[in-house]
Amino acid sequence: MAKPSNPQGTRDFGPAVMRKRDFILDTVRTVFKKYGFEPLETPALETLETLEGKYGEEGNKLLYKIRSNKEIVNELPEEKADGIKALLPERWIPGNSKLGLRYDLTIPFARFVVQHRNDITFPFRRYQIQQVWRGDRPAKGRFREFTQCDADCIGSNSLLHEADLIQIYNEVFTNLGLPNAILKINHRKFLEALVDELSLDFPVGKFTTTLDKLDKIGEAGVMKELVGYGVDETKCKQLFAIIGNAELTEQNLATFAQAFNNNVIAQKAIDDLSAVLAFLKGYDLDIRVELDLSLARGLDYYTGCIFEAVVPDSGIGSVSGGGRYDDLTGVFGLKDVSGVGISFGIDRIYEILEAQNLWSDNLHNNENTLLCHFDMASQQYAMGVARTFRENGLPCIVYPDNKRINKQFDFANKIGVKNAIVIGEDEMKTGKLTLKNLEKGEQFSLDITEIMKYINA
Amino acid sequence: MAKPSNPQGTRDFGPAVMRKRDFILDTVRTVFKKYGFEPLETPALETLETLEGKYGEEGNKLLYKIRSNKEIVNELPEEKADGIKALLPERWIPGNSKLGLRYDLTIPFARFVVQHRNDITFPFRRYQIQQVWRGDRPAKGRFREFTQCDADCIGSNSLLHEADLIQIYNEVFTNLGLPNAILKINHRKFLEALVDELSLDFPVGKFTTTLDKLDKIGEAGVMKELVGYGVDETKCKQLFAIIGNAELTEQNLATFAQAFNNNVIAQKAIDDLSAVLAFLKGYDLDIRVELDLSLARGLDYYTGCIFEAVVPDSGIGSVSGGGRYDDLTGVFGLKDVSGVGISFGIDRIYEILEAQNLWSDNLHNNENTLLCHFDMASQQYAMGVARTFRENGLPCIVYPDNKRINKQFDFANKIGVKNAIVIGEDEMKTGKLTLKNLEKGEQFSLDITEIMKYINA
Repeated sequence: MAKPSNPQGTRDFGPAVMRKRDFILDTVRTVFKKYGFEPLETPALETLETLEGKYGEEGNKLLYKIRSNKEIVNELPEEKADGIKALLPERWIPGNSKLGLRYDLTIPFARFVVQHRNDITFPFRRYQIQQVWRGDRPAKGRFREFTQCDADCIGSNSLLHEADLIQIYNEVFTNLGLPNAILKINHRKFLEALVDELSLDFPVGKFTTTLDKLDKIGEAGVMKELVGYGVDETKCKQLFAIIGNAELTEQNLATFAQAFNNNVIAQKAIDDLSAVLAFLKGYDLDIRVELDLSLARGLDYYTGCIFEAVVPDSGIGSVSGGGRYDDLTGVFGLKDVSGVGISFGIDRIYEILEAQNLWSDNLHNNENTLLCHFDMASQQYAMGVARTFRENGLPCIVYPDNKRINKQFDFANKIGVKNAIVIGEDEMKTGKLTLKNLEKGEQFSLDITEIMKYINA
Repeated sequence: MAKPSNPQGTRDFGPAVMRKRDFILDTVRTVFKKYGFEPLETPALETLETLEGKYGEEGNKLLYKIRSNKEIVNELPEEKADGIKALLPERWIPGNSKLGLRYDLTIPFARFVVQHRNDITFPFRRYQIQQVWRGDRPAKGRFREFTQCDADCIGSNSLLHEADLIQIYNEVFTNLGLPNAILKINHRKFLEALVDELSLDFPVGKFTTTLDKLDKIGEAGVMKELVGYGVDETKCKQLFAIIGNAELTEQNLATFAQAFNNNVIAQKAIDDLSAVLAFLKGYDLDIRVELDLSLARGLDYYTGCIFEAVVPDSGIGSVSGGGRYDDLTGVFGLKDVSGVGISFGIDRIYEILEAQNLWSDNLHNNENTLLCHFDMASQQYAMGVARTFRENGLPCIVYPDNKRINKQFDFANKIGVKNAIVIGEDEMKTGKLTLKNLEKGEQFSLDITEIMKYINA
């Protein structure tokens, strides 16, 4: 029999990986909660009506469609079924696909908001941490099943939310041990102002798509593409004179206003960002927050602030993105509801922490203590010790089988526990148990209270 | 435009439901961890090779099969595609189904163990809390997407695991606020002994399937069915004389041994359960643990202890089940690996707690505090108060818009927060903020440290 395996582009997460993934998710979740975001979960299954046509042509191709055998069998018209079976190999079962797998968390959120709009109190802050599926070609760092981690506030255009999200970015990256992360901010109105100020007569979307390639193709490449669209070189040079980046401060905003020649559209961006800065007054940022006028994030649906977070020198692109949108729910018939949201790329963050080994020490260890013994009597005594451990919130395992003590230590080392307790006749008589710190090779004779204190230290 | 909706048999979990679901999952997870079970997650997508043929004929029908459009388009032979398109309505896209959705957590766990057997240290304790999908007809309490919550230990036949699992049952139900739950235990050898002792000449599986219906069709119904199989009435009466239930104690085990006429097969069950009781010595059980000789759980793959938990008077069948198996991984070619595991039915537990309103008070409330204000200056001051709150781990929201104070209180009431803080000119001057307990209708003037103390109390 061939060894079974998980499908291409998917992953099993064993205990050692789960500890680290949970650390990332718990860190993000804890910060989201402190900022009043509340949990939401939507089903993995959505109707194709909800999903189709929402992710562009490429997205539509990557959508996973679903049928149960039962549905297929029940719904196939008999006369057609015969014709089809003649055409198809046995294993090809045709079906009308009514359901699909969640492709992102944004569209299901929009669907939820529209469907439940009469029960929701706006502004509504929700976070959502769930899997999504895309039938993409698997590659390094690209999976068919992965986790998204979103926070959005919908139903208010207050810039307080942008300030809250910046604080969230700061706390998430600091708590993850990535204080060198950079949060890049731009504003849709700056992009529109560039088009206006340079009198480009093509859509903002086309302009931002080109600008978005700056990282990859450089100024020369962007200029070449713009010139190809009929923009003259002088204007391109004007453009590059404006679109630098600088720390987001009142002073730098004023400088940009000048560079924009006090363009009225740019002024709207500057007013918004000033308001955000006012809300942040007194808050100490650990990460760098940078105004980057070349930041476009491709998506045409952002209408205000745009966010992107990167970890320098990680060799990985953005680890988070987001922004303000004014028509997320429009696709489902609910117009003019403003919102703002961000999304963390958990898998990319994991890769950075793993590559640079930035995990805190306790994430490398199995947090259990192993209780070792010599015979049935000492094993039963160990069950009592285990109870005391667990009543005090300490996880532990009594070695289940009657094997030689070295076998038990082998097991302890293999599963990565730091401490083992040895219980034999002497220990049962005196109540002083032998504690072995397997990491340091130390050994102590202590009573159970002292042992728990040692382990908790 | 029609209002969008989630698919039949699936659910959206908004914040109020999520708080309660998370309470259940956190309770179970915390206990699993204390007993040394470590987290595992497997993908929602499994190959059909892994899934098919594992869940019986009915299960195969309920399996969800998956294709991405891209795969379908790429793999459809062109000449056939044209023929098929002529036969099918546009939306019917045929495809060869290579992937399916996770149907339970047991088969993926078995697949994981076999696939990674060289990297796993046995005995391996894992817990797994994930969604599963079944294309069943939706009904009250029956969903197409629901959560399973399993703990298994594989690679050891030590009865210490059975004792650990009983302790886990006890702590989970006590911590959930369901101390009246009953854990029913039986042993496969008792069932085999009944067949042996009564000299029934049909398979144990057939016998247990009939016995399993006792709850539904009563003694008379079971007797009728057995008589139909050719068992004489005297033997049936003998059977019902034996299969009562009683608290699991040494003394009651001895009584059962007598009832079984010291049958050697039954003796194996009694030895096992005595060993389990020895491991439990000194452990105080809050729930009732009951030996129930009619418990069969239909599944033929249990080989030792069998578990089932029920909450009396809930109108809901079992809320958990499990047992020891000796050949879980045999379907994937790894023979003779003994294990034991249990699974909690989260959705059923939720329904019982909800119907009887057994939730602790804090699960009804939004845990945030709302910070209210009168103008831009007091809103910015509130941002500072919020920072202090969050630095101290307290979640809060600064009301984002500039609306009248009554509107802000309305919002607080609607989202269910207990406390609101009002910040105006006086408050900013004195540092004494107005705290409104919206639940009790009380109001205090306190500094921020006193407020945090009040909220934490």
